[in-house]
Amino acid sequence: MTTVYSQLADRFARIATIEEAASMLGWDEHVVMPPGGAGARADQLATLAGIAHQMLVAPETGDQLSAAEAAPPEDALARRNLELMRRQHTRAVALPPDLVEALARASSACEKTWREARGRSDFSLIAEPFGSLLALVREQAARLGDALDLAPYDALLDLHQPGTYEAAVAPVFARYESFLAEALPHAEAAQGHGAATLPGTPPFPEDVQEALCRRLAARAGLDFDSSRLDRSAHPFSGGTPTDIRITTRYDSADFASAVMGVLHETGHALYEAGLPRAMARQPVGAAAGMAAHESQSLIIEMQASRSDAFLAWLGPELARAFGQDAPAFAPERLKARLRRVERSLIRVEADELTYPAHVILRFRLERALIAGDLAVADLSAAWREGMRALLGIEPPDDRQGCLQDIHWYSGAFGYFPSYTLGAMAAAQLMAAARQAVPGLDASLEDGNFAPLVSWLREAVHAHGARYGFDALLTVATGDPLNASHFEAHLRARYLNS
Amino acid sequence: MTTVYSQLADRFARIATIEEAASMLGWDEHVVMPPGGAGARADQLATLAGIAHQMLVAPETGDQLSAAEAAPPEDALARRNLELMRRQHTRAVALPPDLVEALARASSACEKTWREARGRSDFSLIAEPFGSLLALVREQAARLGDALDLAPYDALLDLHQPGTYEAAVAPVFARYESFLAEALPHAEAAQGHGAATLPGTPPFPEDVQEALCRRLAARAGLDFDSSRLDRSAHPFSGGTPTDIRITTRYDSADFASAVMGVLHETGHALYEAGLPRAMARQPVGAAAGMAAHESQSLIIEMQASRSDAFLAWLGPELARAFGQDAPAFAPERLKARLRRVERSLIRVEADELTYPAHVILRFRLERALIAGDLAVADLSAAWREGMRALLGIEPPDDRQGCLQDIHWYSGAFGYFPSYTLGAMAAAQLMAAARQAVPGLDASLEDGNFAPLVSWLREAVHAHGARYGFDALLTVATGDPLNASHFEAHLRARYLNS
Repeated sequence: MTTVYSQLADRFARIATIEEAASMLGWDEHVVMPPGGAGARADQLATLAGIAHQMLVAPETGDQLSAAEAAPPEDALARRNLELMRRQHTRAVALPPDLVEALARASSACEKTWREARGRSDFSLIAEPFGSLLALVREQAARLGDALDLAPYDALLDLHQPGTYEAAVAPVFARYESFLAEALPHAEAAQGHGAATLPGTPPFPEDVQEALCRRLAARAGLDFDSSRLDRSAHPFSGGTPTDIRITTRYDSADFASAVMGVLHETGHALYEAGLPRAMARQPVGAAAGMAAHESQSLIIEMQASRSDAFLAWLGPELARAFGQDAPAFAPERLKARLRRVERSLIRVEADELTYPAHVILRFRLERALIAGDLAVADLSAAWREGMRALLGIEPPDDRQGCLQDIHWYSGAFGYFPSYTLGAMAAAQLMAAARQAVPGLDASLEDGNFAPLVSWLREAVHAHGARYGFDALLTVATGDPLNASHFEAHLRARYLNS
Repeated sequence: MTTVYSQLADRFARIATIEEAASMLGWDEHVVMPPGGAGARADQLATLAGIAHQMLVAPETGDQLSAAEAAPPEDALARRNLELMRRQHTRAVALPPDLVEALARASSACEKTWREARGRSDFSLIAEPFGSLLALVREQAARLGDALDLAPYDALLDLHQPGTYEAAVAPVFARYESFLAEALPHAEAAQGHGAATLPGTPPFPEDVQEALCRRLAARAGLDFDSSRLDRSAHPFSGGTPTDIRITTRYDSADFASAVMGVLHETGHALYEAGLPRAMARQPVGAAAGMAAHESQSLIIEMQASRSDAFLAWLGPELARAFGQDAPAFAPERLKARLRRVERSLIRVEADELTYPAHVILRFRLERALIAGDLAVADLSAAWREGMRALLGIEPPDDRQGCLQDIHWYSGAFGYFPSYTLGAMAAAQLMAAARQAVPGLDASLEDGNFAPLVSWLREAVHAHGARYGFDALLTVATGDPLNASHFEAHLRARYLNS
């Protein structure tokens, strides 16, 4: 018997299949597509997105949802799936087609101008298109908020990490600000001044780095029968659980960003690979949100791969790979590169301790932009003031300030907090893993991620989107998000305390 | 004002855009996809194909076609486009959805069994699934024939080269059979017996071959800003006119198949790149059919690249590329490899003179299978008998006989004739090009394809599907298909006459 729920499941699987096709075309665009293909590719992606959207907002979808809700499935997982389907549908129908189209057009125009504005470090170039885009995003936020019964900014946060709102995030970030103000000078003092000796001697040939990254990703659990590692200008992970695509870039002067970048993307990939197959292509079979996703990349990269235990194994491995002497990759030299704390201007280059300051700044500014409390004309000054307050430094220009990230200029608001919520969750999960898995650090000392990854599969990956962010952490660790684990981790790693 | 014709043009552009996405995913599948992705990819492709089909057979498409036909556009190109839209629609609605589905399932099952049957050279393994598939193909042919007012086999030919039917093909092939019977012994005598000295000394490193193939493709006119050359198990060309993807495979023991294979695929690519941009994604903006397409690959590969003129340029180029002495690539040694005539069992390895015999055999057998005049159980014997009659040789097993090609076992009937019709058209077009472009061979002697390709762009590519096969040849050369040019070409090249 075909139930209305199973009809819905078919419909959502079909939508997900179209989105998979789009994800693959996105990989192609960023990894192999010749420049001449850009126009046709944009059309292909817009057409697929339009079809998936149409299938979601079709009147039958709403009718089927109502019918299924009237006689909900008995299985709890199916009920949760139905709830997530409804949420997707509510979000999609909340926005009138002309607003969706205007947003797509304004994002594309603003992003294009942003590249020029950033190149010239001239915010005035972007002020007008960014103002137009922001007005549309505010309308989007208001409409989504109305539909979901959320404040406008919460409705944007909800797009990236469902169920995690400003009222929960703001105090977590305020507490971190205090922690940082106290911890940062100590961390700086602990690592001493002056440049420590960096590991190894460049050049580190790109092909050697690539082979090494491939071995490390496999060691962390990436199955190359169902995944690929390629090169792209901006590293990303994409694809589907049985065909995962991660990318990186190589710099022969520095092996660290590729090695740690690949381990980071491998963390994302392991999450996707570990999602529950029985619920594949269903909303409940997807990842639990972007903060959850970031927790999985950061537990592999920051918690495991930059740990004392793993670095002890990694040093000799690097020496072998690059054909250099082992002492050149001794722990203290690796730490000088991989665990250096520094007050810096660029988010993507920031260390683990100061990174949240970059996120907190953006969280506060975007909240004010969406609320209408901050005008576009005042953004640059507010940015400088925020950096001064949080890190005591000030960007000399907008390129190193409010123009550095693409997010806002492509219409993405409410995304930034995920990075830091993910970092905090990663620390909390690592503490729980250490409790649950005896000898976890000893295994990392052998370059063996398997005990950690096995635990993550069961504690996190296998749940898909069955739980929200806090509930997932509660199931996995016994508590909702608790930032004290992250602070303890940072104290132990950077404050020698 | 939006006319009903422009609504149709939008609809067909949308369908073509989805087909472009599918073509790109097909490239990915055959070039980069890890094995684990196969299941998800099959779903993605089936979903996209289903959506494109639904858009074509939707009742509104039929209504719009009727309305547009009642008040046809004034522009002749638009009228031709409307005619081609109707033809696609008629073909699509002729097949009930359950037949389409049964065909897809049976093709997929039969193709899978075929791989095993060919591997074991055991036709009995495939007999049953092939029988089931053939029954469905015969029903498809009958229904298409009814809808298009064509005999069943003609309806299948029409799928690959519209407007070219058995009544025209059969006498052309019969004439070639006679020509071959007379010419082949002379060609064998002319080239002498015993093995001639082959060009160069292996190994020919794969990366050197790849760089060389890239240079040759660019020289033939392929623009790498809008195309790629990659590796795959079975060479093909795909993609879109602004993002063309061609592939080849490399064998370090033999440079010739990659070099000539890439030039062949480049011919296909140049046709796609030269299609009329103003009619992109419209039926009239596509290639004129598979015989027309094959004429473009073969004019570059067989007519131009294996000509005396081009081989005189290619020899020293090969010597430089492989770092060997020029005399090792002297014309007579290149010809010993690139223009060797041989009675052989495998179509894809056959030379230019005997290749049509392989096609003629398949044409006759598939015609009989579709007509019900040949039973599946008798196919193997009929194949052996046919090879004996046409080439005087007989396959020792079915792997080298009726199991060698995938076409029938994946449900493709009526395709084979395109190869030979294309070869004949290529000779006819080359004769016309030589008339129209003074110094054509002198330019090939300089390794310069530009005069030939410029002529092809105007004479063939720019017309898209405005004309049928014979009409296109008439516009380009003054005559419909005339096989005497192919015979004259073969006599000149192989019979020293």
